[in-house]
Amino acid sequence: MSQDASTDGDLRNTGMSLKHDREWDYELDRIVEAVEERDATRVGLQFPEGLKRRGPAVADDLRELCDDDVTFLLSGQPCYGACDLDTYLMRRTDVFVHFGHSPMKESEKIIYVPLFSNVDPFPIMEDAVEELPEDDVGLVTTAQHMNRFDEMVEWLEEREYDVHTRRGDDRLTHEGQVLGCNYASADIDADQVLYVGGGKFHPLGLAMEHPDKKVLIADPVNNVVTVADTEKFLKQRYGAVHRAMDAEKWGVIFCTKIGQGRMEIAEEIIEDNDDAYLITMDEVTPDRLRNFDMDAFVNTGCPRITTDDGPQFHKPMLTPGEYRIAVGDKPLDSLSFDTFHGTW
Amino acid sequence: MSQDASTDGDLRNTGMSLKHDREWDYELDRIVEAVEERDATRVGLQFPEGLKRRGPAVADDLRELCDDDVTFLLSGQPCYGACDLDTYLMRRTDVFVHFGHSPMKESEKIIYVPLFSNVDPFPIMEDAVEELPEDDVGLVTTAQHMNRFDEMVEWLEEREYDVHTRRGDDRLTHEGQVLGCNYASADIDADQVLYVGGGKFHPLGLAMEHPDKKVLIADPVNNVVTVADTEKFLKQRYGAVHRAMDAEKWGVIFCTKIGQGRMEIAEEIIEDNDDAYLITMDEVTPDRLRNFDMDAFVNTGCPRITTDDGPQFHKPMLTPGEYRIAVGDKPLDSLSFDTFHGTW
Repeated sequence: MSQDASTDGDLRNTGMSLKHDREWDYELDRIVEAVEERDATRVGLQFPEGLKRRGPAVADDLRELCDDDVTFLLSGQPCYGACDLDTYLMRRTDVFVHFGHSPMKESEKIIYVPLFSNVDPFPIMEDAVEELPEDDVGLVTTAQHMNRFDEMVEWLEEREYDVHTRRGDDRLTHEGQVLGCNYASADIDADQVLYVGGGKFHPLGLAMEHPDKKVLIADPVNNVVTVADTEKFLKQRYGAVHRAMDAEKWGVIFCTKIGQGRMEIAEEIIEDNDDAYLITMDEVTPDRLRNFDMDAFVNTGCPRITTDDGPQFHKPMLTPGEYRIAVGDKPLDSLSFDTFHGTW
Repeated sequence: MSQDASTDGDLRNTGMSLKHDREWDYELDRIVEAVEERDATRVGLQFPEGLKRRGPAVADDLRELCDDDVTFLLSGQPCYGACDLDTYLMRRTDVFVHFGHSPMKESEKIIYVPLFSNVDPFPIMEDAVEELPEDDVGLVTTAQHMNRFDEMVEWLEEREYDVHTRRGDDRLTHEGQVLGCNYASADIDADQVLYVGGGKFHPLGLAMEHPDKKVLIADPVNNVVTVADTEKFLKQRYGAVHRAMDAEKWGVIFCTKIGQGRMEIAEEIIEDNDDAYLITMDEVTPDRLRNFDMDAFVNTGCPRITTDDGPQFHKPMLTPGEYRIAVGDKPLDSLSFDTFHGTW
C-alpha cells in the first residue's frame, strides 16, 4: 500500500489538490429558468473556497443568458459547506444559488447546484479492494462523487462484496454521503468501510467517529490507497485536553453560521461555569480569539475547526465533549469525535 | 518639532499604542437599568478591537448586578467603528451595548457607551500652539476625547485664537468630531486645523480630505506634535491607480457592514463596465480577495481599507473616485480622499 507520508496527519494539505482538469456542469438552464419565473433582478452566487475563482466566468455566462436588468452578486464570504450559506446575500437577492454542496435543508429560495467530479473512481477502487479482505463492506463518499455512487455499489457487488449503505440522517442529502461533521452514513453493520474521494479530511473524521472500523481511503484525485490513521490526531486532541485542564477562564464560542449554531450546548456550559464567557462570531480564526484574554476555548461551531485547525490557535480549543473531560465531568476515555446532526 | 520617523506613513503602528493606564467608565448603571426595564434575558456586548479583552471583566461586573437568568454574549466579530455594528447579535438580544464609539444613528435598541480617554490633552496642546502662527484655527478630535472638547476650545480662546468648529454632518454625533471616513467637521474657514488625539490615522485622512489646510497633530497619547504629511500616502495612491490602468477584470466590492454599504456606487460601476463583477463581503481582507481572479479591485466599503491597507492586497485596490481615473473617466488630478456621508 502506498503511504503519502508528507501529508499524513496534516489535513490542510489534502483534499483540494486537484490533479485533473475538471469540467463542471453549473446547470445554467435551471438558474435562468428560476430568474425568469421569479422576474428576478438580483441573483446571488455562492461558491465554496476552492471554486470561487470560477464565479466570474459563471456570472459572464449567466449575463449572456439573462436580461440586462439582472444583476449578479458574487459572495465574497468564506464558504466551507452547505452549513455555511451567505444568509446576507440570500435575503437580499431574488434567486440565490449555492454551488458545490448538496442541500442541507431544502428551501424554495435556494438553488443548490452540486458540482460532480469527473474523475473515474474505478481504477483506484481496483487497488483498494486488495485491502478489503472481508465479505462485508460499508461504502461512503462525498457530495462531489455522489453521481457515481450507484455504480460504485454495483461494481463492489460484482466483486462479491456485501455492500452496506445508508442515508445517515437529515443533515445529509444522499445515501452513502458523509460530511466533515457527520458520519452517520457509516453506521452500518460492517467492520471495514471504503471511502471513495479526494483527500483525508472526510475519512479521518470518519475513522475518529468509528474507531472500531477499518477505514480504507480510495482517493481517485491523488491516485492513492491508504488506511485512515487517527493516531496523530488523537494525540493532538489528548494534548489539547490536558493543556486546558488548568484553564481558569473559558471562552465558549457560538458560531453564527446558519448550519453551525448549537446555542443550547453553549448556554449549558455558561450556566454551569462562572468562569466561562459566551463569544459569538461567524468565522472562528486565531486572530479573533487572540483578542480575548482566555485560557482555553470551547467551540460549539464546526468541529473540524477545533480538531483540524486547533494547533493554530494560541490557546487550547476543545469540542464540547472534550470540555467536559477537561473540567472533570467525564472520564478521559470518553473522548470522541464531535458530530453535528440535524439542520437548523 | 519632534518627528516620529519610525511610524511616519505607516498607520498600522499608530493610534492604539496606549502609553497610559486608562480607567474607563462603562456606564454599568445605564445598562442594568435597560436590562430591568426590558426584562431582558439576553444582552449583547460589542467592543472595538483594542478593547475586546476588557469584555469578560465588564460581563463579570454586569452579572453581579443583574439577575441570574440574564445571559451576556460578547461579540467576537471584528469591529472598527460605529459603522460596524454586530447586527446578528443586535437582532438576537434584548439589550445590545456598543462600547467605544459615539452613535452614528440613534436607535432604541442600541445603548452606545462612549469610552473617554483620561489623558490630559493640555500639556501637548501647549507645545502645539507654537506651530499655529495664525489667528484662526480649526479644532477637531475623536469620540475618545470629546469629553474635553469644550475645555479645549476655551483653552485656545484664552490664548487669543479665533476657534472654528462645526458638526460635520449626520454621520457624526458631535461638534468637532472626525471619523476615519468623514472630516466634514473640518470644513471651516481657517487655513490651519488642530487635531487633538492619539495616532495619525485620523489626521492623515483629514489632511488628504483638506489638502489646502495645514493639519497639526497634538497627540497626547504618544506625547508628540507633528504636521500631517500625506506625501507617502499620495504616492502610494497614484501608484495604485497607475497599476490598475491595465486591468481587464475588475472586482467591485460591496461591503455588507451596516454603515459601510454604497450599493448605488457599486451598481453604477457594474452597469458601465462589462468586465466588472460585484462581490459582497463583510470583512475585506487580502485572503478573501485572493480567491477571485481579478486584475484590480474597487472598494465601495470603508475607504480606509483601500488607502491604509491597500499595499497588503495582491492586486491594486482603488476607491470609487480612483477607479474613474484608472478607466479614463476623470483626469488624474481629480484624485481625492474618499469620504462617507450619512448613516444607513
